[in-house]
Amino acid sequence: MKNEKIGLADITQGIEAVDRQWIEKARQRTAQLVMPFRALGRLHDISEQICAIQQTLDPSIDRKAILVMAGDHGIAAEGVSAYPQEVTGEMIKTFLTGGAGINVLSRQIGAEIVVVDMGIVAQLDPAALNAEDRLMVRKVARGTANFAKAPAMSREEAETAILTGFQLATDLMVKGIQILGTGDMGIANTTPSAAIGALMTASNLDNMVGRGTGVDDEGLDRKKAAIRQGIETNQPNPADGIDVLAKVGGFEIGGIAGCILAGAFHRHPVVIDGFISTAGALVAHAIAPQVTDYIFAGHCSEEPGHKIMLDHLGLRPILDLGMRLGEGTGGALAMGIMDGAVGIFNDMLTFEQAGVTGKQ
Amino acid sequence: MKNEKIGLADITQGIEAVDRQWIEKARQRTAQLVMPFRALGRLHDISEQICAIQQTLDPSIDRKAILVMAGDHGIAAEGVSAYPQEVTGEMIKTFLTGGAGINVLSRQIGAEIVVVDMGIVAQLDPAALNAEDRLMVRKVARGTANFAKAPAMSREEAETAILTGFQLATDLMVKGIQILGTGDMGIANTTPSAAIGALMTASNLDNMVGRGTGVDDEGLDRKKAAIRQGIETNQPNPADGIDVLAKVGGFEIGGIAGCILAGAFHRHPVVIDGFISTAGALVAHAIAPQVTDYIFAGHCSEEPGHKIMLDHLGLRPILDLGMRLGEGTGGALAMGIMDGAVGIFNDMLTFEQAGVTGKQ
Repeated sequence: MKNEKIGLADITQGIEAVDRQWIEKARQRTAQLVMPFRALGRLHDISEQICAIQQTLDPSIDRKAILVMAGDHGIAAEGVSAYPQEVTGEMIKTFLTGGAGINVLSRQIGAEIVVVDMGIVAQLDPAALNAEDRLMVRKVARGTANFAKAPAMSREEAETAILTGFQLATDLMVKGIQILGTGDMGIANTTPSAAIGALMTASNLDNMVGRGTGVDDEGLDRKKAAIRQGIETNQPNPADGIDVLAKVGGFEIGGIAGCILAGAFHRHPVVIDGFISTAGALVAHAIAPQVTDYIFAGHCSEEPGHKIMLDHLGLRPILDLGMRLGEGTGGALAMGIMDGAVGIFNDMLTFEQAGVTGKQ
Repeated sequence: MKNEKIGLADITQGIEAVDRQWIEKARQRTAQLVMPFRALGRLHDISEQICAIQQTLDPSIDRKAILVMAGDHGIAAEGVSAYPQEVTGEMIKTFLTGGAGINVLSRQIGAEIVVVDMGIVAQLDPAALNAEDRLMVRKVARGTANFAKAPAMSREEAETAILTGFQLATDLMVKGIQILGTGDMGIANTTPSAAIGALMTASNLDNMVGRGTGVDDEGLDRKKAAIRQGIETNQPNPADGIDVLAKVGGFEIGGIAGCILAGAFHRHPVVIDGFISTAGALVAHAIAPQVTDYIFAGHCSEEPGHKIMLDHLGLRPILDLGMRLGEGTGGALAMGIMDGAVGIFNDMLTFEQAGVTGKQ
């Protein structure tokens, strides 16, 4: 795998759909395993897709990482979140001490966590936090602009965010990471995600906008009004993923889009988490539609618009547990299921090896 | 925990619903964890239920076992399965060599497997198979009778099957096992399970009977006809779990019912798997309705009647992945999610510990 700086046009050109022949080969192996035909259902679909991504019948996702992308959002000034903006930086510190939800669930599956400051307001010093290997500061800016009034960022910044995510994910893959989970942190980030979701899936705001971390009815109304105003003011072009990201998106959402593009470009599976990661997937999909072959949807969030986004991408979530935390938690939990899927494919005996009589 | 031989009446009397106060205490702790209120959805319900079962705010399910109950079925003579009866014994040998689906998924979660011959036709010698610690021979008989023509077993045999499962599960819990999964193996065993399901949930056979390991349309018709004939011939009393088990059940299904009763009696969580395990849960529930407080439904099977059974028991499955293998595979996979739930409860920091600002 080459690790050179490349541009978005090169990335787009380098992404291809998976070769269906690998899926067919993998299905032939599954059919020999000592059980009724495809009796483990979606576990087989998962392992066969990984075979096709990795172009092998000996798939491995042992080496895992979660990239937690963090950003702040000018739209928070519109009163769209139940939590104050300083929580973004405080939660990053919590990720680094190992006490957050994503830490617990990543330890369980043996995934390393890399936290990226894609553009939060707080100034965190990795050295002072003794976290130079785990906190990457790649600020595009100190928070986006309030997109109800002006574009969240410039088109150039949007491209920078995507390329930064692409590069960080590439670095991890060069290091040997075989599967990547995307996570997010950023107070107010369900608001840009809902804006992206509404634009990209052509959905009504009432179906797409939820309570995020738990706003009350008035907060929900403010959230919808802010998004409506942002779309009217900035007139994003839904066919142009970078334009949508620039006008109503966020730096961490761009970073997540870049991770997904890197997975598809380098043929590595990427597990997306919930509402924010899927907004990133919508941006990546608008840039290179074939990315969906490389994406696994970890779970279906409680956030009502999430299912609409996943349907638009043609992705079926692995888990549906009423979760809505973000951080990458749903993806981390789903990686345990994916480990089971790959284990079945690799380690289960065939009828012949087990000496078991076949179907009558 | 006492480990004495006891009768069914003692067991029934010893089973109580969990104390809701423990759930309330656990919910109070969850509310302090550093995330939006209950943002991990069902993970919280799972961990809090385990707290109530174990009567602690320091829950643990580290020590796990899967009890794979095996039995053969006289009803196989009616042509209800796609596989010949010798496969039951062959698969048990595969479990002991470590090459079956349940072995792969149990290794992933660190669960030990104990296989029980509750009444298969083949004669397996644990010593010859070098499996004295992993294969328990507790044959109630060498397969049930063909219940289309006569009761599958006597009432005494049904009680023996249940008490055998109770005792084996108790032995594991005495040894320190904290959570038990139930598994099954037995060619044709979706047929007695569907009969139990139809009787206990008062459902139409067309909704309850599925293709099991994969019978064709004619096999499906034979299966429904055999069940219809069995119910007409034997007239089981749906209010009497032991009568239903005796007339149209199976030895492994009785064993599973006994495991579930043991979990409730000794206050240990039990994770049921799919269609056959849930038939066992219906029998246990008919004997002691409070058992449902101790049961976690690992997954929703592809077998169409499974959801009806789970609804009847008021259980929501953790996973829904189109699986239909049995062996305990769905329960084993779900235990990974439960590990995550308990990990979050025990190891996530509180807002106060993390120094994170709360909701505005």
